Amino acid sequence: MEVTRKNFKESLNTIYTAIEEADFLAIDGEFSGISDGPSVSALTNGLDTPEERYHKLKKHSMDFLLFQFGLCTFKYEQSESKYVMKSFNFYIFPKPFSRSSPDIKFVCQSSSIDFLASQGFDFNKVFCNGIPYLNQEEEGQLREQLEDKRFQSNGAQSFISPSSCKGPVSVPEEHKDFINEVLDKVEDLLNNSDKIGEFLRYILISKVDDEERKRREQEKQEKEQEELNDAVGFSRVIHAISQSAKLVIGHNMLLDVMHTIHQFYCPLPEDLNDFKEVTMCVFPRLLDTKLMASTQPFKELISNTSLAELERQLKEAPFKPPKVESADGFPRYDTASEQLHEAGYDAYITGLCFISMANYLGTDLVPPAVPSTVKLFLMRIIDIPYLNISGPDLQPKRDNVLYVTFPKEWKTSDLYQLFSAFGNIQVFWIDDTSAFVSLSQTDQVQIAVNTSRYAESYRIQTYAEYMESRLEEKQNCRRFTECGWLKSPYSTSAVVSVYASHSSYCKNCILHSLYVYNHG
Amino acid sequence: MEVTRKNFKESLNTIYTAIEEADFLAIDGEFSGISDGPSVSALTNGLDTPEERYHKLKKHSMDFLLFQFGLCTFKYEQSESKYVMKSFNFYIFPKPFSRSSPDIKFVCQSSSIDFLASQGFDFNKVFCNGIPYLNQEEEGQLREQLEDKRFQSNGAQSFISPSSCKGPVSVPEEHKDFINEVLDKVEDLLNNSDKIGEFLRYILISKVDDEERKRREQEKQEKEQEELNDAVGFSRVIHAISQSAKLVIGHNMLLDVMHTIHQFYCPLPEDLNDFKEVTMCVFPRLLDTKLMASTQPFKELISNTSLAELERQLKEAPFKPPKVESADGFPRYDTASEQLHEAGYDAYITGLCFISMANYLGTDLVPPAVPSTVKLFLMRIIDIPYLNISGPDLQPKRDNVLYVTFPKEWKTSDLYQLFSAFGNIQVFWIDDTSAFVSLSQTDQVQIAVNTSRYAESYRIQTYAEYMESRLEEKQNCRRFTECGWLKSPYSTSAVVSVYASHSSYCKNCILHSLYVYNHG
Repeated sequence: MEVTRKNFKESLNTIYTAIEEADFLAIDGEFSGISDGPSVSALTNGLDTPEERYHKLKKHSMDFLLFQFGLCTFKYEQSESKYVMKSFNFYIFPKPFSRSSPDIKFVCQSSSIDFLASQGFDFNKVFCNGIPYLNQEEEGQLREQLEDKRFQSNGAQSFISPSSCKGPVSVPEEHKDFINEVLDKVEDLLNNSDKIGEFLRYILISKVDDEERKRREQEKQEKEQEELNDAVGFSRVIHAISQSAKLVIGHNMLLDVMHTIHQFYCPLPEDLNDFKEVTMCVFPRLLDTKLMASTQPFKELISNTSLAELERQLKEAPFKPPKVESADGFPRYDTASEQLHEAGYDAYITGLCFISMANYLGTDLVPPAVPSTVKLFLMRIIDIPYLNISGPDLQPKRDNVLYVTFPKEWKTSDLYQLFSAFGNIQVFWIDDTSAFVSLSQTDQVQIAVNTSRYAESYRIQTYAEYMESRLEEKQNCRRFTECGWLKSPYSTSAVVSVYASHSSYCKNCILHSLYVYNHG
Repeated sequence: MEVTRKNFKESLNTIYTAIEEADFLAIDGEFSGISDGPSVSALTNGLDTPEERYHKLKKHSMDFLLFQFGLCTFKYEQSESKYVMKSFNFYIFPKPFSRSSPDIKFVCQSSSIDFLASQGFDFNKVFCNGIPYLNQEEEGQLREQLEDKRFQSNGAQSFISPSSCKGPVSVPEEHKDFINEVLDKVEDLLNNSDKIGEFLRYILISKVDDEERKRREQEKQEKEQEELNDAVGFSRVIHAISQSAKLVIGHNMLLDVMHTIHQFYCPLPEDLNDFKEVTMCVFPRLLDTKLMASTQPFKELISNTSLAELERQLKEAPFKPPKVESADGFPRYDTASEQLHEAGYDAYITGLCFISMANYLGTDLVPPAVPSTVKLFLMRIIDIPYLNISGPDLQPKRDNVLYVTFPKEWKTSDLYQLFSAFGNIQVFWIDDTSAFVSLSQTDQVQIAVNTSRYAESYRIQTYAEYMESRLEEKQNCRRFTECGWLKSPYSTSAVVSVYASHSSYCKNCILHSLYVYNHG
């Protein structure tokens, strides 16, 4: 089901019901770009630490816009041993709510736009009919403005008829004659409506009693509340997913999760651990099908874990195609002909992949059992397959890894040359003048470091030495910017308001977050 | 005429002819955003210097994409006393030419996108079928790559048949037996084509004589040249406009000119004077209809100089609607019903405005006489109506202006309060803690400065003092970054290549620019 600004409001109950009744949800996002960095290789070093990867993605990907969001809900029908699914394809665009609302700027990457265009993506639908949204801070500000306005208008004179002016308004002495004259004319006018043409052609005058005034005020408040809800827009769907605390499936979903939090909750925190905490608040149960397919027992059975390939392989032996049907009134997707990269469709086949793999594991438990930890696939890090959202990350020793610095003229072949005595090596470029080199034998690491001691053009350190010096650098840097907090892209109050708004579905969060941000 | 990637090549001759035969050209651009700054007021202070305004526009507007370009050519038909016009509406998008070509990122501003969407702008046409382009540096690099490739392939062995291997390739001793065996088999194969199935299923082998080789090489080079031309794409239209040296009309065209140079020639220079020089090279004759309409004698006759209003007013007395017809095969625009903000249409009515005003001036000279200086309208600067591209800018004395700094809590009302003794004032905010204040009487400036001498919360300087201290700051800053040139966004070689490419139509340019950038 396609959802745009035009049918969003009338679809909301259908969406809420689908989330409510589902056994699990699958999501997918389409973005206006992937990476704003200098090059992909600089962005994804195979020996990144999870912190580094998080910072790179935060820095180089969050200025793009998530402009299509797919949600597919899956509900198991015990009686018929099948899943019933409801698929939603949301178009999203930050149309400014009013003249004073933030005018969002977002980046487009021409290769991504060109790719989506080649897949028939409808940009006009996004830009003309995309559903607006607000993050928690913007929503809070708008709510505050509304309350201020109400407070003012409750005490204001605009609803008190001029003739009842006694207490609150004091008319300056020099204007009293004029005001009295006007009041007389108005009274006269109201009593002799045939005179209206003579006096005031363009002013509508009506006497309003107290009850009528209250009714009008209430109507106005309801209208303002509705406008606020309209402005919060698509964020309401994300809030509903979050509040349901249901299992949320995605394929290679780290960027989807980061964008969703960044766009609909709050700017991403500086620290990876804070990000993990926010994520656990917003999506307490996540499962990444790319990680699942890359892990035992599927690792041996599946040669290619890209979504389209995975879906194809999971329909064939030893797997079985899952029994899934569209709910009444929802369009069917045909996996044989359908276009990939429509977010709703991608979410749907992500769900199919999950069901196939869960069935293979013999969990005829329904809904399928899922591990209690939350792990997201990490692209192209050779020894850390996932980001552990629910706890500390893997810390591979990397004691066969060297950190090498050299003149910027060096190429990969120079490194192969340098280490030619040490058998097979792997090179991971960091920048123009440094790289990690992993040796096949750990016991050769010290030999390599020793032989470099007197070299002039290059320098070799162990991975452990390198990490230690980086840590020191970081600490010095912190000492230097004494009040680093002020440089954070979001203010304390914004963070607290974000956490506060989570408190209803994550009770530990607000206390802890207040602790972190007041003492951290 | 709508021009996209699909009909660009077949339309090029029509476009070139239209430019060639025209008496003048009108242009207009549509962008993915206008201003990336904190707020419009911070961007356009009414007392900006031309340098400041240029830097603000450069910093806050050049990351947007010019994605629609309107060109309307006007030719006077003496015999029928009318203009014949040809209008082109180009869709433009930086589709990456190859995997190694730059992957352009551009910013979109949601208010601008929303506005264009509301006007029926077709984003799908831009993103799916936009014409690609290269700037001069990119074009140069691609040309170089091509030449390198040709040079290598001329010296390479791939076109020399294996049996003629004598001089250049020396086969190592240990491989000679193997190579000879292969050569024998290939000879055998070529002599007995029915054996092909037995030997080499997937390799195409053919004996190529010298003439055939040359023919193929030439074909290949022609194809490569065509691919290069395709990649240069829309920039070829801008080059043609530039080389024609014809009068180019625009309405409020400073941003159009800046974007055009930035996108199709080179990143904008740091210095305003360098920008003026590049502009004079690219567009030696420019005329801004908004400036013309804001100047005598039109100033008194025209109340609103926005394009749509101007066009409306110039159809009525004392003006006369110009006689303009579409050329055969070109669609007609109906000014009564047509949508504004399609670049081709906006260019068209800009041309109409120019003709009406020129006719009013009584210049029945055809083409209309235009001043020899090049001036572009400057938005919202109270005493500098235009940027003088062809010479030094106006330097209003501003001796009734004060520079005031104060605590960030101050509002405009605090400034009115402070200067209440000095009659009418105008306030021009610079940032949270400073503003210009212009007094109605110049002789009160010194009094205001004197009264502030012992003030603690605020400080008042004359405009002249302020400008002097800014100049000093700037010079200190230059001394500090000893080699500021290295920090420039473009390298010397790029600039020189840009200027070099202009040299054909601006002979003084290359010498001067080399001087500036080597000695400056």
